[in-house]
Amino acid sequence: MRSRPTMSDIAGIVGVHVSTVSRALDPKTCHLISPEIVAKVGEVAAKLGFRPNAAGASLRTNRSRTIGIVVPDITDPVFPPMIRGVEDVLSERGYAVVLANTDGDEAREAEVVASMLARSVDGLALASSRYEDKLIPRIGDVPVVTVFRETTKPVAPCVVFDENCGIRHALTHLVSLGHRRIANIAGPRTISTGYSRWEAFERHRREMKLPLDKRLVVFADGFNEQEGERCAETLLARTSDFTAILCANDRLAVGVIDVLKRYGLRCPDDVSVTGFNDMPYAGRFVPALTTVRVQQYKAGWEAARLLLDAIETGPGRRGKPARIVLPVELVVRGSTQQVASKAPPRTRRRLAAAR
Amino acid sequence: MRSRPTMSDIAGIVGVHVSTVSRALDPKTCHLISPEIVAKVGEVAAKLGFRPNAAGASLRTNRSRTIGIVVPDITDPVFPPMIRGVEDVLSERGYAVVLANTDGDEAREAEVVASMLARSVDGLALASSRYEDKLIPRIGDVPVVTVFRETTKPVAPCVVFDENCGIRHALTHLVSLGHRRIANIAGPRTISTGYSRWEAFERHRREMKLPLDKRLVVFADGFNEQEGERCAETLLARTSDFTAILCANDRLAVGVIDVLKRYGLRCPDDVSVTGFNDMPYAGRFVPALTTVRVQQYKAGWEAARLLLDAIETGPGRRGKPARIVLPVELVVRGSTQQVASKAPPRTRRRLAAAR
Repeated sequence: MRSRPTMSDIAGIVGVHVSTVSRALDPKTCHLISPEIVAKVGEVAAKLGFRPNAAGASLRTNRSRTIGIVVPDITDPVFPPMIRGVEDVLSERGYAVVLANTDGDEAREAEVVASMLARSVDGLALASSRYEDKLIPRIGDVPVVTVFRETTKPVAPCVVFDENCGIRHALTHLVSLGHRRIANIAGPRTISTGYSRWEAFERHRREMKLPLDKRLVVFADGFNEQEGERCAETLLARTSDFTAILCANDRLAVGVIDVLKRYGLRCPDDVSVTGFNDMPYAGRFVPALTTVRVQQYKAGWEAARLLLDAIETGPGRRGKPARIVLPVELVVRGSTQQVASKAPPRTRRRLAAAR
Repeated sequence: MRSRPTMSDIAGIVGVHVSTVSRALDPKTCHLISPEIVAKVGEVAAKLGFRPNAAGASLRTNRSRTIGIVVPDITDPVFPPMIRGVEDVLSERGYAVVLANTDGDEAREAEVVASMLARSVDGLALASSRYEDKLIPRIGDVPVVTVFRETTKPVAPCVVFDENCGIRHALTHLVSLGHRRIANIAGPRTISTGYSRWEAFERHRREMKLPLDKRLVVFADGFNEQEGERCAETLLARTSDFTAILCANDRLAVGVIDVLKRYGLRCPDDVSVTGFNDMPYAGRFVPALTTVRVQQYKAGWEAARLLLDAIETGPGRRGKPARIVLPVELVVRGSTQQVASKAPPRTRRRLAAAR
């Protein structure tokens, strides 16, 4: 026996997208579709004997077909491509995306998640989680994925970047240019990206037998230009005995380069600087940033697929949560170059002059 | 008689935000608040004789307390600050924000708006509207504002920039540097920003008695780097008789500068270029972009306030929709300079060599 007709069948015959059929058949939304299409859809539906799928309708009443995305700040350029990746997957499947910003504030994160749960979201994509996360275990049965970030205990599926490989690439590149005294502007260790990048720096520094000098490591409280500036000031106040600075992300690197300039130091002539993320337009900056390229859009895309998987499988499946690690690549541009000479670094003289 | 106690009263006594009180008293969300706070809130509520506001609860059932934001593409850097502005106003008032991208496609816009209406949004902020918009009149009673853009017929309140003043600033600046033959890479005239900026260019060109040469005006199909490149190629294929290019936005300018470079032409030495928007990081590009700064965040903020106003006033009030025009300012940076000499422009020789 022929299976019962679906909206897809109607869409195929009328020659429109299945969501157009859905809207044409819904009295609440049919006025948005052209009257000709509504008429045509209605005609074909009647001819095929189409009846709305009861199971589907019932599912729909239990579900809002809405997903929440929580980010620290949408104006940080790494997040929009990720959000776009999530939305591209989900809108295709009839889900809407609710968005909220937390500014990295833990209490605010709990608030926006609560607000989303109160709106019966079907799942949550969190780019705002802390490494020692207390919120996710309290969320309950609503599927959660973390994206860009993960938690110490694997409480939810996650999509992250190969931070270790990225830092190794950046450090190997600097060492290949003759740099040995390499400073690290690290990210906050309360966030997995900050922690992993710092840990990877320390591991590879040891493996590459680079000198240990605690003054060369400064921790930022956030991944932004202001913190990059503050950390560079701290570093320069401690020591001038370095020829390169590896930064935990691009925005920190941008702040660092600004401070170097302020002290009359040239990047890359006096100090090489690397970033992380390859944020949009990083190749157009002065100097163009040498950085580690991550796949922001792909991360959102994969996170949305993990979420759909969890929503459709339901709470029954319990096992070790999926962990997708996306590969990274080094992009060498103008902010790094061969270490100048064996002479005492120009940095020292410049700083002495500046004080 | 003392008025009945509110959540604000409880919040004040417990020393937490009113939304925390709301969540603590809601069985669906109280698990997200620390047990101590939930206990304290419950205790104070009981002591004050607090009862949930029936009117408020009824309002809540009629409303989703959700606002839809529709943008062409969240990865275009002008939109995130606007979205953030909307969210900052609305989250403060307990609204959530649903976000969708249209890629400038009219059918897709109708789809996402339909999907948002089906989710009972309380209002819509559209940054995706066409100048000759057909969608808004079909939306019905749900309040709509357009942001960054407006429509030929004022069918909805809007928040726009002073495009005319921005173009006049840019053109006056170029003329003050001695430029007379100024090309215009205009935006699509199907969108109000594209139309107004082009119209302002023509008006001020006439007023400043600059030569009329139709070859100097090229229309882009979109506001992005690829279209900037295509339009610059078209312009250079037509003529080399210009010393400056005024672009309808920054991304077009970036594409134009890339093409100039490809032809061995230097910006600003051979050709001055201006943008529009002052998108994030435009001051860090090579060359740093001379552009017209608009207030993206403020636009989102004002749009959200107009929406709240419309939602709270209800459909009863009908008059001419509000139109907020935000002021703009010229930011002079490195992509413009004094016109070189009266000698035949270097552009012509370079182009001849390149062919």
